[in-house]
Amino acid sequence: MARLVMKFGGTSVADIARIRNVAQHVKREVDAGHQVAVVVSAMSGKTNELVGWAREVAPLHDAREYDSIVASGEQVTAGLLAIELQRLEIPARSWLGWQIPIRTDGAHGAARIQEIDGSELISRFERGEVAVIAGFQGLAPDNRITTLGRGGSDTSAVAIAAAVKADLCDIYTDVDGVYTTDPRIVAKARKIDRISYEEMLEMASLGAKVLQTRSVELAMVHRVRLQVRSSFDAPDAQPSCLGKDGSANFYPGTLVCDEDEIVEQQVVSGIAYSKDEAKVTLSRVPDKPGVAARVFGPLADNSINVDMIIQNLSDDGKTTDMTFTVPQAELVRAEDLIRKLQSDVGAQEVKTDLNVVKISIIGIGMRSHTGVAKTMFQTLGEKGINILAITTSEIKVSVLISSEYTELAVRALHTAYGLDGE
Amino acid sequence: MARLVMKFGGTSVADIARIRNVAQHVKREVDAGHQVAVVVSAMSGKTNELVGWAREVAPLHDAREYDSIVASGEQVTAGLLAIELQRLEIPARSWLGWQIPIRTDGAHGAARIQEIDGSELISRFERGEVAVIAGFQGLAPDNRITTLGRGGSDTSAVAIAAAVKADLCDIYTDVDGVYTTDPRIVAKARKIDRISYEEMLEMASLGAKVLQTRSVELAMVHRVRLQVRSSFDAPDAQPSCLGKDGSANFYPGTLVCDEDEIVEQQVVSGIAYSKDEAKVTLSRVPDKPGVAARVFGPLADNSINVDMIIQNLSDDGKTTDMTFTVPQAELVRAEDLIRKLQSDVGAQEVKTDLNVVKISIIGIGMRSHTGVAKTMFQTLGEKGINILAITTSEIKVSVLISSEYTELAVRALHTAYGLDGE
Repeated sequence: MARLVMKFGGTSVADIARIRNVAQHVKREVDAGHQVAVVVSAMSGKTNELVGWAREVAPLHDAREYDSIVASGEQVTAGLLAIELQRLEIPARSWLGWQIPIRTDGAHGAARIQEIDGSELISRFERGEVAVIAGFQGLAPDNRITTLGRGGSDTSAVAIAAAVKADLCDIYTDVDGVYTTDPRIVAKARKIDRISYEEMLEMASLGAKVLQTRSVELAMVHRVRLQVRSSFDAPDAQPSCLGKDGSANFYPGTLVCDEDEIVEQQVVSGIAYSKDEAKVTLSRVPDKPGVAARVFGPLADNSINVDMIIQNLSDDGKTTDMTFTVPQAELVRAEDLIRKLQSDVGAQEVKTDLNVVKISIIGIGMRSHTGVAKTMFQTLGEKGINILAITTSEIKVSVLISSEYTELAVRALHTAYGLDGE
Repeated sequence: MARLVMKFGGTSVADIARIRNVAQHVKREVDAGHQVAVVVSAMSGKTNELVGWAREVAPLHDAREYDSIVASGEQVTAGLLAIELQRLEIPARSWLGWQIPIRTDGAHGAARIQEIDGSELISRFERGEVAVIAGFQGLAPDNRITTLGRGGSDTSAVAIAAAVKADLCDIYTDVDGVYTTDPRIVAKARKIDRISYEEMLEMASLGAKVLQTRSVELAMVHRVRLQVRSSFDAPDAQPSCLGKDGSANFYPGTLVCDEDEIVEQQVVSGIAYSKDEAKVTLSRVPDKPGVAARVFGPLADNSINVDMIIQNLSDDGKTTDMTFTVPQAELVRAEDLIRKLQSDVGAQEVKTDLNVVKISIIGIGMRSHTGVAKTMFQTLGEKGINILAITTSEIKVSVLISSEYTELAVRALHTAYGLDGE
């Protein structure tokens, strides 16, 4: 017997037929003897409809009202799934964020979970009841509904799993796991069986959309074992925690876990790419101390997230070119700020470029292997791809290149690091 | 300055344009200096959609889940209206049943309000805040959402009005008031300016659909002054409590109030009809003591509401024909029960008839005037209409007739009691 949290997103509960399918997945785990909590999103399209109405009334609107409106979508799905489970003679009840309660801070629209008391849920598990929990929502200190921001149901699921000390948190999605890279680009991409929290966190922040960054962070902090698996699997597939031999080692999807649980370590586990980058260049800035602070200070003050930074000496040797990247959504604000200080710092020109992509190689093996970055630079060089900027961390190397080379670069790196499957 | 509760039903908030129209009605009252709480239903069609989904999952389903699902409709409307009011620079916030809280009993699907603490709402009125309240919903003792049953938003509005000691509760609807009878049948039907609680209660229970019976009962108990008025009025019409001269005596709709407030009393105020009747006859039942108990006991035990009862001696003088009426929705169950005891009571035959209508004349003036019923019987007799059954109370007389005479009877009575307008 194990305690399991199962999370289903919007496409998995898009209509009554799909909700019945979800119930079959739940039934399989209940039949295997597990204690189960299910976290659900709104039916796909519903959240957009609700958000659309709020925006139609007023483009700028009270985030507290927005949260109350939007949270109703998950309320509906949770009730419908509870009814379907009861029809299958599985004791079940729905729980809304304020009923558990899932206590959050007061940052409406993007609230952070602060505390969940899991004791009531646990005592009901022990009486055989399945908890069907509306994801994405919580309760602010002022007794109003909060939402956790887009994709927040993943975070709800992980937080619930931590609160009830679940053995596993299964995130059901429309793919069957985390891949070495985007299979739409690389036909030979392979499903990863196990990946460490640290790697998954980098993958998520660097462009792999399968899990929300915040939910991986939370899983890492609370050591919640997370599995990404497909809701399109036949519901009579294997239960999540028990293999054919009854052992606890079979996972149909990708298990995100502590690196100790991973036997075969790869040097590079995956390759991510993000097209959400915009490049800004200030050319021919006089090379004086304090220039960087004058440029990046105002950006930081305005919560604009600068990622990569490069500073080159210009041809004349007296000025520098400063280049940095920001998320595309923040480019307009960033450019606006930079143009205001252009004459102040004496920059000759401000240029922006949206046709860039950030390619990253990720792997905890990098800690103990040398020459990993060198292979990357060599591979890209052989394909004639120019590197515009580089950033590294302990377990990843990212490069900025022209976006027209995206597929070429990802495929070449996938082969170079031995990730190609059959 | 007055304190006002305004209630808007589903058609009044059917889309964003209609919600903006509602906000203009609210603004008018706020601009007039009133303290305002608004109670809203779900957008029309939404409740049916949600109920439809619950039924599709399982025709018989947990009423607690049903309530949680269905209550989401009002949650959306309340949030949207609060946003629109804020856009008009009116301080406003939405309130859900569990936030106030509106405490109900645990009868999910048809809960009764037990307690509302109005102090928080009142303190916010005094700071100029408009309360936008999700109607139709409350909180059960076990901390789960309840609904008050169909049309329950009227009841929510009256209960809120009682809790905050409102001067007036305006029920906005698609007609401009309560009419002497159904204007679709009688072109000369007139809008009633003022009607007593007792009369309105009879009108509502006897077929006038403009207000829920339960909400009128509650208004009567708590002496909440109720106005029925049209949400299709231009929003810049008169504020509710103030006439053109600034006095508190102008009401564009129909005021439901204590009879002391009604200066010109009519003997008969209105004529109602209900096609929701079904007639059941047990013929040639041996006339022995205890027969009635054996027939009506099982009906009562099964919560079937028997309305009119007549017992005639048959031609042979030894048996009686027993006739009674039940709501059409309960006919199948009633007939089933009666057929089971047919041989036990020795009835020769059980007949049912759906082609009947109950016509009622209502007026508190009956208490002090004699001959009111006689006028009714005479009028119907002159038109050749046979009366199948009669019931009376202190302020009403109801007769059961064949339904083909509905329009003829209602028109003749409307004229006979001097109710015809221009």
